[in-house]
Amino acid sequence: MAQKKPPTRKKASAQADDTRDRLLDAAEFEFAAVGLSGARVDTIARRAKINKQLIYYHFGDKDSLYQAVLERAYSRIREKEFGLDLASDDPIIAMRTLVGFTFDYCIENRAFVRLLINENVLEGRFIRRSKAIRQSGSPLSALLHDTVQRGVELGTFHRDVDPVQLYISIAGLCYFYVSNMYTLSALFERDLDRPSALQERRQHVIDVVLAYLGAGTPAWHAGELNSMP
Amino acid sequence: MAQKKPPTRKKASAQADDTRDRLLDAAEFEFAAVGLSGARVDTIARRAKINKQLIYYHFGDKDSLYQAVLERAYSRIREKEFGLDLASDDPIIAMRTLVGFTFDYCIENRAFVRLLINENVLEGRFIRRSKAIRQSGSPLSALLHDTVQRGVELGTFHRDVDPVQLYISIAGLCYFYVSNMYTLSALFERDLDRPSALQERRQHVIDVVLAYLGAGTPAWHAGELNSMP
Repeated sequence: MAQKKPPTRKKASAQADDTRDRLLDAAEFEFAAVGLSGARVDTIARRAKINKQLIYYHFGDKDSLYQAVLERAYSRIREKEFGLDLASDDPIIAMRTLVGFTFDYCIENRAFVRLLINENVLEGRFIRRSKAIRQSGSPLSALLHDTVQRGVELGTFHRDVDPVQLYISIAGLCYFYVSNMYTLSALFERDLDRPSALQERRQHVIDVVLAYLGAGTPAWHAGELNSMP
Repeated sequence: MAQKKPPTRKKASAQADDTRDRLLDAAEFEFAAVGLSGARVDTIARRAKINKQLIYYHFGDKDSLYQAVLERAYSRIREKEFGLDLASDDPIIAMRTLVGFTFDYCIENRAFVRLLINENVLEGRFIRRSKAIRQSGSPLSALLHDTVQRGVELGTFHRDVDPVQLYISIAGLCYFYVSNMYTLSALFERDLDRPSALQERRQHVIDVVLAYLGAGTPAWHAGELNSMP
């Protein structure tokens, strides 16, 4: 009986959110696979099982849909980074958590890696227009700065570092492994995507970052566990 | 007078090499800019100022031309790496030379970075077919292995490392900075391409790698100069 009543405002809004999410999922898949210029609104509509007109209703045009996908992708990773609650942990553990998270995120969200590749091919045209994304860089570098600073004060980290350089290095060590996995696997005749290789790489990037911060002594190095989640 | 004689066999062969090189340069530019599927043989011919039929004569089809461009790109960087003569240097200097070279190479050869992005979008289809490229991975990891090993024996480097992981990290620290420069510059509201930023990054990646190898003590860190060539 209850189902036959017209939806309440709350339900209608939840439905609209759901439609929007499904659309963004389908669009992200498509943009990641074939880039902005290759993606077709028809294909996205079919994949989302949503009427094409609804895309225009929700987002305007293809460029705006792409912009929304990009903004959601950035806000998701930032949300998770801030959710790691680094401030309450020992700085070494905090840094290991952040680096491990970044690696896992690249492995599990390859569409994100592809999306960033495409946005760089577009010379960052859309990210530059997005105030939301640009405003997320400064809290991110502050998060890193605070974690490093706590380590320096505790005497765990030997030196102060530029948090932006550090973030680019953490991301580069993780992201490049994923973005260039095909060419690297062929060049070194190793399957870099097999679970043991991922596990090995994950440990390696943590080691590199902690060594740079001065906390990666061989003694520390030996006995630790770092399992994938 | 001499110019009016028909070209000798040597001259004819030099001319053919020159044509081939010009073609490969034009093709590399085009493939790097728009990828394999986007590139048109007509455009490459116009850019090289060479008759389109000569492309088919020299390379067969567009795929084979792409394969030749990819092979030349890999052989060029490998040739330069082996030309660094790392074996005769002190291991710390050798490692700094290699890391600095890798950074400079990415900065100065952005078409190479783009080409690798495209080949990964193609899921490494062409690199897997290339025996020449696959055979270059093993000498490369041997070169790194030897350099690290000499450092370990001299007591300069604290630990033994997997040379393949090390190479991927060196490349990742350098390559990602270039491949993702647009998004990173927007995110952190810094122009990462300005000379002082490049200089800073170059020093940073050298520091990270040497710290990982155990040779990056703050004392060492303080007094060194690392100017771009």
